[in-house]
Amino acid sequence: MSHTAEIIAVGTELLLGNIANTNAQDISQALSSVGVNVFWHTVVGDNPLRLKEALDIARRRADIIITTGGLGPTYDDLTKQTICEAFGRPLVLHQDILDGLKIFFEKNVHMNMPSNNVQQAELPENCTVFDNPVGTAPGCAFEAGGVHVLMLPGPPFEMRTMLENHVLPYLRGLSSEIIVSHDIMTFGLGESPMEELMREKMSHMENPSLATYAKPSEVRLRATAKAASQEAAEAMLAPVVKEVTDFLGNYVYGVDVPGLENACVKLLKERGLTLATAESCTGGRIAERLTALPGVSSVYRGGVVSYWTSVKAAVLGVPQETLDTYGAVSEQTAWAMAEGARRITGADIAVSVTGVAGPDPDERGVAVGIVYIGLSTPDGTFCRPLDLGGRRRDRIQDLASNHAFDVLRRYLTGLPILLA
Amino acid sequence: MSHTAEIIAVGTELLLGNIANTNAQDISQALSSVGVNVFWHTVVGDNPLRLKEALDIARRRADIIITTGGLGPTYDDLTKQTICEAFGRPLVLHQDILDGLKIFFEKNVHMNMPSNNVQQAELPENCTVFDNPVGTAPGCAFEAGGVHVLMLPGPPFEMRTMLENHVLPYLRGLSSEIIVSHDIMTFGLGESPMEELMREKMSHMENPSLATYAKPSEVRLRATAKAASQEAAEAMLAPVVKEVTDFLGNYVYGVDVPGLENACVKLLKERGLTLATAESCTGGRIAERLTALPGVSSVYRGGVVSYWTSVKAAVLGVPQETLDTYGAVSEQTAWAMAEGARRITGADIAVSVTGVAGPDPDERGVAVGIVYIGLSTPDGTFCRPLDLGGRRRDRIQDLASNHAFDVLRRYLTGLPILLA
Repeated sequence: MSHTAEIIAVGTELLLGNIANTNAQDISQALSSVGVNVFWHTVVGDNPLRLKEALDIARRRADIIITTGGLGPTYDDLTKQTICEAFGRPLVLHQDILDGLKIFFEKNVHMNMPSNNVQQAELPENCTVFDNPVGTAPGCAFEAGGVHVLMLPGPPFEMRTMLENHVLPYLRGLSSEIIVSHDIMTFGLGESPMEELMREKMSHMENPSLATYAKPSEVRLRATAKAASQEAAEAMLAPVVKEVTDFLGNYVYGVDVPGLENACVKLLKERGLTLATAESCTGGRIAERLTALPGVSSVYRGGVVSYWTSVKAAVLGVPQETLDTYGAVSEQTAWAMAEGARRITGADIAVSVTGVAGPDPDERGVAVGIVYIGLSTPDGTFCRPLDLGGRRRDRIQDLASNHAFDVLRRYLTGLPILLA
Repeated sequence: MSHTAEIIAVGTELLLGNIANTNAQDISQALSSVGVNVFWHTVVGDNPLRLKEALDIARRRADIIITTGGLGPTYDDLTKQTICEAFGRPLVLHQDILDGLKIFFEKNVHMNMPSNNVQQAELPENCTVFDNPVGTAPGCAFEAGGVHVLMLPGPPFEMRTMLENHVLPYLRGLSSEIIVSHDIMTFGLGESPMEELMREKMSHMENPSLATYAKPSEVRLRATAKAASQEAAEAMLAPVVKEVTDFLGNYVYGVDVPGLENACVKLLKERGLTLATAESCTGGRIAERLTALPGVSSVYRGGVVSYWTSVKAAVLGVPQETLDTYGAVSEQTAWAMAEGARRITGADIAVSVTGVAGPDPDERGVAVGIVYIGLSTPDGTFCRPLDLGGRRRDRIQDLASNHAFDVLRRYLTGLPILLA
């Protein structure tokens, strides 16, 4: 039987927007990996009446209720009391938890346990205790009338530890099904054209299923299978991933790869090549995305942010004649920037970006959104011209960075630099 | 009368844990700034039955319902249809929106509008249209039986643009009370020391109130006043902002300034000075934050990402002897990097960062988190050494960038470079 879960986060700080509900995200991800459907997230404040209302609604539509937050020692931590009232279960003192709390305080806080922490040792009668090695609030689970209620602490680090150590084993015990997903990562097709292309394929599929998730200029296709074992799920997924990957061809930059930059770094490492960057309108975004990856220093040498035209000439050695004749935003300057970056850093390959991110056109009247991606390689220098107009500055900068990685990826895999 | 809001996010990707519900966070923050209480967040999948159920529950307990997501052109985008059915309001085609969409596609996507985008031009009868300058899905609002229903697109950046341009003005129109806030921005004090320092002041205050919001190494103090008019609120806030700013002294880098980089660019413009950057472990983050600001080209010339030691020598001209004697991560190299960046770009000032972001120590055994910020100026060269150990790579990179901006700000305002 397949289970349906609702996640109820308790905390006024969530309703004030002080923090995002990352707990719900983490729990949802974990639950999907064990085949539990999450159909609802709810957030309520530290208010017992509204929490009671949320519980009454949740128990009618879900058979697993997971709460986060409100297990602390202060007067507004009322999750346990409210849940026990709603489900008619008494709270009882667990002497072993109380002893553990006293030791935790002596060892970690170097003080006697404050008296209001005693209530953290009170848990529902006949519950499964989830111990908390990284905080003071234990969690727990019980079953009442066919509904499983699990209470977890609010601090994300404590919650994640308990999720891994206790919640997943508890839930695996309830289900016989495994869920496995693979992400087919694409660049160059928007979400609408992708869906039009894929609609027929997707509409037939239930298990494995296929869904699209869009980021600017990237679309992720997630194939998901439910089966009795990991092996069975993988066997169901393999032909689907192959079929979709073959069908989308050059748009696919990887399977289960987090981003274009990861795909590029992997290719550079495989081919033993080093890279340099020369950025004008992207202003360091390409370098930043590369250096966010640990271990990138084996392939990324560095680069230049040549924001002023004089820096393009003085540091990258772009000929003044090129700048005067064609302008700083031109195919010729993109070429010379890439060649310059390659020369001064000694890298095997250099990628360059010059363009107008806006909000205003450049001093020669080149329109906002006009961008040139240059690529200098042992096989020659290439350029992809782009018109990214009609977008905001940050979108143009992000898109131009994506295109730079796509040009690099296409070169490294022997594909044409220009988009079809 | 005070209003009660519920935020309903629509999207299966939220229930699968692919993304966090940052839209609910952003909307909650914005609503609190205009005096609207948010009592509930709900998340449902792309499922009309469950969305209908969420709407039926929400309209009983809130008089403002804000939805995000499900306004796209694909078959599973059903928010508008479901809301219109639930509230008995027909969807009608808005010819002007359709014309705008066609132009958007021609101009930005260089293709004819796909036929499934036509439904994005359909909105409820008699609604207020929220145009979307950064995407294809317009939002809207209508009132039915005392409940205001607002529909916003799901992509966070489209949602935020619409929140600012349309939702806040719409909500301000519902209330007779004005809420005004000012943000006192600080760098260098953690949240706990700040709260300890401010506790006594904060505990006495109700209107204006004072609250702290922490980011890594930055704390924002928000002073908020409710009054009948903007002028009255400003008059209540002025003495509070002055008192807190005076009390916190050099930690304050600005009032209502979005970030340290904005404060630096403002100071550079006022003083007519230009800047260059030389980044090693921050890998382009400082350049990227500067170039995110429109109009920064009047003061930012560019910089070098000298990720490899050879690039520090060849491009920035750091003497090989300095690198051999002191290592790439040293005060001496930070100095030489800043001086080199200033020299090759011709900038008045250059800031440099060299350090170990991890996960491993550098090849000379310098520990993860050791960072040096250099600053070359007409008044000489300075350095702030830092130990940011015990943190993750991305946190070290972000913190080091923040310190670089703080060093620059302190130089430009005549304060000591070293933190007290």
